[in-house]
Amino acid sequence: MTDDANHALRWPFTKGHGTQNDFVLLPDPDGTLDLTPLRVRALADRHAGLGADGVIRVMRTAASDEPDVQALAESAQWFMDYRNADGSAAQMCGNGTRVFAAYLRREGLIDADADEFDIATRAGVKKIRVTADGYATNLGPWRVPHNEQLRDRGFDTLVAVRGQAPLPALSLDLGNPHAVVALPETLDLETLDLSVAPELNPTLAQGSNVELVQPVGPGQLRMRVFERGVGETRSCGTGAAAAALALMLWSGQPQENEDWQVEVPGGTLFVSALPGGEVELSGPAELVADGEVTLVG
Amino acid sequence: MTDDANHALRWPFTKGHGTQNDFVLLPDPDGTLDLTPLRVRALADRHAGLGADGVIRVMRTAASDEPDVQALAESAQWFMDYRNADGSAAQMCGNGTRVFAAYLRREGLIDADADEFDIATRAGVKKIRVTADGYATNLGPWRVPHNEQLRDRGFDTLVAVRGQAPLPALSLDLGNPHAVVALPETLDLETLDLSVAPELNPTLAQGSNVELVQPVGPGQLRMRVFERGVGETRSCGTGAAAAALALMLWSGQPQENEDWQVEVPGGTLFVSALPGGEVELSGPAELVADGEVTLVG
Repeated sequence: MTDDANHALRWPFTKGHGTQNDFVLLPDPDGTLDLTPLRVRALADRHAGLGADGVIRVMRTAASDEPDVQALAESAQWFMDYRNADGSAAQMCGNGTRVFAAYLRREGLIDADADEFDIATRAGVKKIRVTADGYATNLGPWRVPHNEQLRDRGFDTLVAVRGQAPLPALSLDLGNPHAVVALPETLDLETLDLSVAPELNPTLAQGSNVELVQPVGPGQLRMRVFERGVGETRSCGTGAAAAALALMLWSGQPQENEDWQVEVPGGTLFVSALPGGEVELSGPAELVADGEVTLVG
Repeated sequence: MTDDANHALRWPFTKGHGTQNDFVLLPDPDGTLDLTPLRVRALADRHAGLGADGVIRVMRTAASDEPDVQALAESAQWFMDYRNADGSAAQMCGNGTRVFAAYLRREGLIDADADEFDIATRAGVKKIRVTADGYATNLGPWRVPHNEQLRDRGFDTLVAVRGQAPLPALSLDLGNPHAVVALPETLDLETLDLSVAPELNPTLAQGSNVELVQPVGPGQLRMRVFERGVGETRSCGTGAAAAALALMLWSGQPQENEDWQVEVPGGTLFVSALPGGEVELSGPAELVADGEVTLVG
């Protein structure tokens, strides 16, 4: 908000993460900041900037110039303007919603006594619930895109991880595509090579996120995730939900309101199937640092 | 410096970089902060923390409890207490000295009119010179450890980059070991595989940094660097100096006070051989963000 001698724009920021999916938050209630892709890339750059998986502008919903977002202003006061590290705008980010919610609460932008509140995203209004250890987000509806095949086999895809024979997987759609692979006990989840993208058969034109999962007990699984276009990450919210839903499906039908505990490299998430075909993701949110950053351009 | 409700310690920080070798600086003039390896690792963690190649505590030299450092207090008021991202203490960091110098100047800890000043490091006092675009650091003496062989051939080592036949290289010691590989024009510097450590023959017990260099014009080269124990990085100050010195040696004898321009993935550095067998590294220093961070533990 200030100009130094070189006329570089300085802007307040907060850095936070949810199970080590990390974000730079920029407060901009009235949408006055020209948040160019160049600026987003510079902020997200892990060496030349602050570094993050994504940048979240904290904005009044009514201040957005996107008609689909503005239309949500009566339902949700605050809009999570999510940008990918490459500068492009994104619909949603499950882990990001919790960090966004934690910021709203800490800054007093949401009634501190409210146990539930709504936020606006490009994927519509999302319901947030305050939990003992963090926040729960209703991710909305999920579906099995190839239901026909599923009925027969429980699997619809083959996924080949580098150096391994192809393994059966189940496709799940949570707004974005996932292929969940149930690893045989004989394979060691930790040592599998995710340095390159696993290969899907049949392939999907738009690609797919891939989750490698192993059950570790009743209602409990661990997983690693390869995010399309990114690589292996320490956490993926919709991926955790897909993994838990796949295990519920393989074991019968989704158990409504039964929490599944999902261990990802970055921490622990909880997934719950809601009535009506929706799914809830819950977990921690940490706000790590606050300050002012120099914006480029 | 403040305690929040959870008694988490908050501390001021600055994030900066020199040719994208990046650092978290912690002001601690009187050395009151208990900077444990755990705290350093948490700060340097690129997802759960602020993220950096290293952490630099800005401390009065006299406040250090290390006798070798304290002994430098009369020569240099400020001590660059450098910690690697793994939490261990380091002697020196060439790119780090410029960011440290930029911080001292900006904060008024060094006379703003001084064109030259000294800083204390665990490798002794280093001379800093203010330049038009940044800072120059006298890295001290350099040497060719296998001088005997060099006299005959100009090379003393073979370095095998993954997927390539072994190439001749020259060992140089700049306080840390380097093997500089002159790439034939037929090899494309950009596409070589540095995802795994190049193999040296003969091997060095303590390992070596490896620089792949290509001349691009008179007094100008570009390079990529694999840092031992780290992997490929966007810049390495002593590596840039080693690369320029190797090219000077191969072309005859080091040209004193002749600047070599070294293009690294993170930017441009300049290297100059000084009289008396010392070498100077110069380049930019950027201070990107300032604020307060929560310390763990």
